[in-house]
Amino acid sequence: MRMSELSLRTGVPIPTIKFYLRERLLPEGVKSSPNQAHYDDGHVQRLRLIRALVDVGGLPLGAVRDVLDNIDRPPATFDLLGIAHQAVAPTPRNDADRAAAVDLLRRLGWTACLDDADDVHGDAAIAALATALQALDDAGFAVRPELLDRYGTAAMDIARAEIAGIPTESAAATVRYVILGTVLIEPLLLALRRLAQRQASAARFPPNEQSDPDAG
Amino acid sequence: MRMSELSLRTGVPIPTIKFYLRERLLPEGVKSSPNQAHYDDGHVQRLRLIRALVDVGGLPLGAVRDVLDNIDRPPATFDLLGIAHQAVAPTPRNDADRAAAVDLLRRLGWTACLDDADDVHGDAAIAALATALQALDDAGFAVRPELLDRYGTAAMDIARAEIAGIPTESAAATVRYVILGTVLIEPLLLALRRLAQRQASAARFPPNEQSDPDAG
Repeated sequence: MRMSELSLRTGVPIPTIKFYLRERLLPEGVKSSPNQAHYDDGHVQRLRLIRALVDVGGLPLGAVRDVLDNIDRPPATFDLLGIAHQAVAPTPRNDADRAAAVDLLRRLGWTACLDDADDVHGDAAIAALATALQALDDAGFAVRPELLDRYGTAAMDIARAEIAGIPTESAAATVRYVILGTVLIEPLLLALRRLAQRQASAARFPPNEQSDPDAG
Repeated sequence: MRMSELSLRTGVPIPTIKFYLRERLLPEGVKSSPNQAHYDDGHVQRLRLIRALVDVGGLPLGAVRDVLDNIDRPPATFDLLGIAHQAVAPTPRNDADRAAAVDLLRRLGWTACLDDADDVHGDAAIAALATALQALDDAGFAVRPELLDRYGTAAMDIARAEIAGIPTESAAATVRYVILGTVLIEPLLLALRRLAQRQASAARFPPNEQSDPDAG
């Protein structure tokens, strides 16, 4: 297909496609004349992936490039989770107190995370938890230990199912699954949590009772 | 305390404090002379809250103002979750297909969310789910229905505990809890999911086996 059809099929404007070509995020098409090239379904898939990373993952261009590089050329080491997490990790605060994070991990029994703390990705994961806990503390928002444990249990329940589903038939399939599963599932989880809150809230605070103070 | 001590206690630089005062996000101190004012613990708390919303929640200034307004002057209506979600909601895509989102909500039995779809906040919540599902689809990343159900179950488990914990002794306490619980708990949940993945991954892919190909 021509670039105009590629644009139509993906909803990505032509100037943006040209930009991705120049930046080598999108591979060149096959030249059919000096000024024209043909694109295939691989280009459609790649463009959709880039848009998903940018629009949903909110990744800056440099991180998109890292993710694509890792999909194209699977890393020799197996620390895929670390690479995926790094791409979407918020900047951790240096002043965040790690003691609370370490205490929580110990209470949850996640000892592999603690053994892992001297690895650069393991350290970043703990820093993210420390930053989140510090922010709650700074805002004076105390989370009950039972609720923290509940969050931990839910996270582990999800993670076990996710890790069990990692395909291992090829390194490329593994990388793709882990990276996209990290970047694209986070917005899904947050959307589900919000809808679940609305659902649970409707049970505790029925809308009718609120809108009509005379009722009941 | 003087502004210099307020700055020391919160780690917020003096020019930033002056900016928040000018923008009326932070209430004025009590003037002790034409050029000096005194600040109290209320200012410390408010500054920490603003920094948490900006640094952790990643909220732009306009959204921070909305959140603070809602905490200071609780809304007459009770749609607090909607207001909180709105403040931190990603921009939904208009082209996202809602059918998949509605199907999923129906399968999960979250009928209150569907009844709620003509409310502006309810509609935004469904749009966020539709956007997340569409992005997965666009990227060619299929999530097994069993895994989707597992995400739903985990989200509901968390939401029930959260909604049950909402304090109702005053409108201000309710608003504060709901808004901060939405903005500040999301990074905590994402950090926990990543650590849980590392923990579960260490069980399935023991680090020793990978670093030494001769082992086993």
